[in-house]
Amino acid sequence: MVELDHIGIAVPALGPALERWRPIAGAPDGPPEVVASQRVRVAFLRAGPAEVELLEPTGPDSAVARFLARRGEGLHHLAFRVPSVDAALAEVAQRGGAVVDRVGRPGSRGRRVGFAHPTAFDGVLVEFVERP
Amino acid sequence: MVELDHIGIAVPALGPALERWRPIAGAPDGPPEVVASQRVRVAFLRAGPAEVELLEPTGPDSAVARFLARRGEGLHHLAFRVPSVDAALAEVAQRGGAVVDRVGRPGSRGRRVGFAHPTAFDGVLVEFVERP
Repeated sequence: MVELDHIGIAVPALGPALERWRPIAGAPDGPPEVVASQRVRVAFLRAGPAEVELLEPTGPDSAVARFLARRGEGLHHLAFRVPSVDAALAEVAQRGGAVVDRVGRPGSRGRRVGFAHPTAFDGVLVEFVERP
Repeated sequence: MVELDHIGIAVPALGPALERWRPIAGAPDGPPEVVASQRVRVAFLRAGPAEVELLEPTGPDSAVARFLARRGEGLHHLAFRVPSVDAALAEVAQRGGAVVDRVGRPGSRGRRVGFAHPTAFDGVLVEFVERP
């Protein structure tokens, strides 16, 4: 069993979104960070034991830009904290689930992350997060 | 600031979905419950400090059935724990956000719940939950 780490929400622009979520989740835990490998700019807001991650695409070639074009803004992914991203991805693959990443890669805030494919979890894009 | 309570995921059938989420979220906290007012059958799985709620429509007139037909299975809503559902809904309405419910109504597990409209939170259907 693993713990929920954060919920990713795709938005066209961080600024107005941060204002809208402030009454629920307070101020962000720091300035927005660009995650170059995923072509997004992100901000994390604390909601009790978990966090809300707002994701803004940095260009039209971002997967989040394609998500926004296809489905519109809204819930994008669920991230779970695991001891080993590689092991979690391998476990999904072993039971026949599709994965986006075979092994972990660098994510925001110095963490190692990896994504399963939405078909593996009832249409939900699941991210595994390994803290340093 | 409020705390995340659970994440709702729309699925066509609870049985296979429970099996798919078991490696992440373990066994459900009890047998599935029918929430007649929302025309869904739900199961809750613990993921650390928050829960994953799997929602299966009980008929084609369920909002979750319409969601599945329109968007497919996947992330459906975010629920936040608040001291007062009525006050949380009023706060959203006061700042110009649309709400589905003006006041709270009975939810699963004896809780009082109320929904804001997705337009109020960047396309995310937000539920407020008041524990008994």
